Amino acid sequence: MIKYLLKVDINMDEFQFINKIKQDFYVQPSLHKGIGDDAAVIRENGQDIVTAVDIFVENIHFSRQTMQPFHIGYKALAANISDLAAMGATPAYYLVAVVIPKKWSEMELAEIFSGMQLLADRHNLDLIGGDTVSGNELTISITVIGYVNKDKARYRNQAKDGDIVFVTGTLGDSRAGLHILENPQTCKYKDEQYFIKRHQQPTPRIHFASALNNISRVTLNDISDGIANEAAEIAEASNVAIHLYDEKIPVHPSFKQFNPYDQYQWKYFGGEDFELLGTVPADDWPKVKNSAQQTNTKLNKIGYVLANGQGIGKVYIHSANNVTSFLPKKGYTHLK
Amino acid sequence: MIKYLLKVDINMDEFQFINKIKQDFYVQPSLHKGIGDDAAVIRENGQDIVTAVDIFVENIHFSRQTMQPFHIGYKALAANISDLAAMGATPAYYLVAVVIPKKWSEMELAEIFSGMQLLADRHNLDLIGGDTVSGNELTISITVIGYVNKDKARYRNQAKDGDIVFVTGTLGDSRAGLHILENPQTCKYKDEQYFIKRHQQPTPRIHFASALNNISRVTLNDISDGIANEAAEIAEASNVAIHLYDEKIPVHPSFKQFNPYDQYQWKYFGGEDFELLGTVPADDWPKVKNSAQQTNTKLNKIGYVLANGQGIGKVYIHSANNVTSFLPKKGYTHLK
Repeated sequence: MIKYLLKVDINMDEFQFINKIKQDFYVQPSLHKGIGDDAAVIRENGQDIVTAVDIFVENIHFSRQTMQPFHIGYKALAANISDLAAMGATPAYYLVAVVIPKKWSEMELAEIFSGMQLLADRHNLDLIGGDTVSGNELTISITVIGYVNKDKARYRNQAKDGDIVFVTGTLGDSRAGLHILENPQTCKYKDEQYFIKRHQQPTPRIHFASALNNISRVTLNDISDGIANEAAEIAEASNVAIHLYDEKIPVHPSFKQFNPYDQYQWKYFGGEDFELLGTVPADDWPKVKNSAQQTNTKLNKIGYVLANGQGIGKVYIHSANNVTSFLPKKGYTHLK
Repeated sequence: MIKYLLKVDINMDEFQFINKIKQDFYVQPSLHKGIGDDAAVIRENGQDIVTAVDIFVENIHFSRQTMQPFHIGYKALAANISDLAAMGATPAYYLVAVVIPKKWSEMELAEIFSGMQLLADRHNLDLIGGDTVSGNELTISITVIGYVNKDKARYRNQAKDGDIVFVTGTLGDSRAGLHILENPQTCKYKDEQYFIKRHQQPTPRIHFASALNNISRVTLNDISDGIANEAAEIAEASNVAIHLYDEKIPVHPSFKQFNPYDQYQWKYFGGEDFELLGTVPADDWPKVKNSAQQTNTKLNKIGYVLANGQGIGKVYIHSANNVTSFLPKKGYTHLK
């Protein structure tokens, strides 16, 4: 289903460009007015409204050396809607504000929007607002608006003693993909295209998150800055200790080809995998497994929550030979 | 009522800064979760939801020569919530994404947020989301979310034959203020502080717009790019001709001190006055006057709408000596 086609002219002004990216029709039934007036209008639909904003800057969050304009658009929106997945919410709308360097062609700009559009179509998102301006640094700010059933938003302060800790997908892939992209001459790796795709076009776990809807209490965080950071955020917000088994942290079968130090760094601190880290009461674990199966999502039990004793607000790793170590809260630092 | 105090440290990281700008309490009853998780959660309240995004870049939209950081923050939010006024909506929430040059001090950054906070407090807005990142150009993207009674959003395509055209406030003041700020040495003007304040701290007409709620049909546009541009947008969207009387375009008593060419340019094409331009059926004009009185808003009848005959989609000016001329659709071009 093609909602709009970008027909790009040279020397369009801002107003013309907004018209170009305007969808020919909208898919969300709650939308009353999309792009074309001073603001968009959304009709309430009986659910709670969830919203988040992110901003991405060239050479901080991404580089033209490793990302095509299409990927830049795709990944910016992916990062943004991943925040809604981490709330258990389903994204419905997005608004995009862009600063465009004069050296960028209209075609490259259109590709950024095409990248967003691919992901938007996959999740039935409507683009309902935009602003564009010329500047020196490519900058993309996206606001996403979605819905969650009343009182079913998943907060990170809900982890409790005895909870199972789980994670979707495999970790470290995005960072491995970046490594491959940044070192094209060094050596060939197995499954290069897999890792590169995970870096350039990650999969936000929207469907899995909303399939958890029948569970009364789930804690969720999306892995934008590495599992070490995200687990610590849950531990701090919930006043619990999180214990993870090192050998249970899921990695891709070809991940072992990278040097062991990198493997460790990338899976714990790599960031941008946009998988979901969660905790759930043990009784509800079968429901989580069921949600994963329904949505074809890889799922692993990787640890447990303790609310009593030492280490509240901290994350611990248990190695295969039963050594417990503290996992520092340090995050992905992008290209800074 | 102070919702939060910025307590700024040196060397804060992004997470710390978001915590600093986090309000101690929220005023909007529909908010369920503010800053502090992956996204904010809003409970529906029986009204339609209205949302818009704007992005502002240093040396395009504003200059440090004429705007303090406080004014930059204030005016960015003012421009954004003015879009909601132009929809007849009341803003309730805002999300801010900022790119901060490393040369900016934390104190200057805090002043930007203080400027937004002043206006937010005035309109009971809650700051519910944010993202900050380092870059080379100061860039501020604001998304505003508000409410309007169902089917009372004011679209620009609703002007009809015989409507009265009205405008709030006085026009050209912001551009006059910029002239004074950019020419500090040339000569002294009367009411300099008035014009400067209108440039640095414009008043979005939120209260007036929502007081129009009892009128079934009103067309509204906010004057961000000059009345010529905004009137043309209404004319085009509504398929009507808009006729304005030159001598009825409201200006400040001291506006006549500027040279006549500037006066003409500024009042028609100056932009950033953030007054409201509207059309309404003649029968409802008393209600509009009443709304203006209730909200202490200066209001003037400045023209009329024709839907039949020539000039559809155009704007015409009638001079005092009864010469009619076409008003070109050209807008404010910021600092570009």
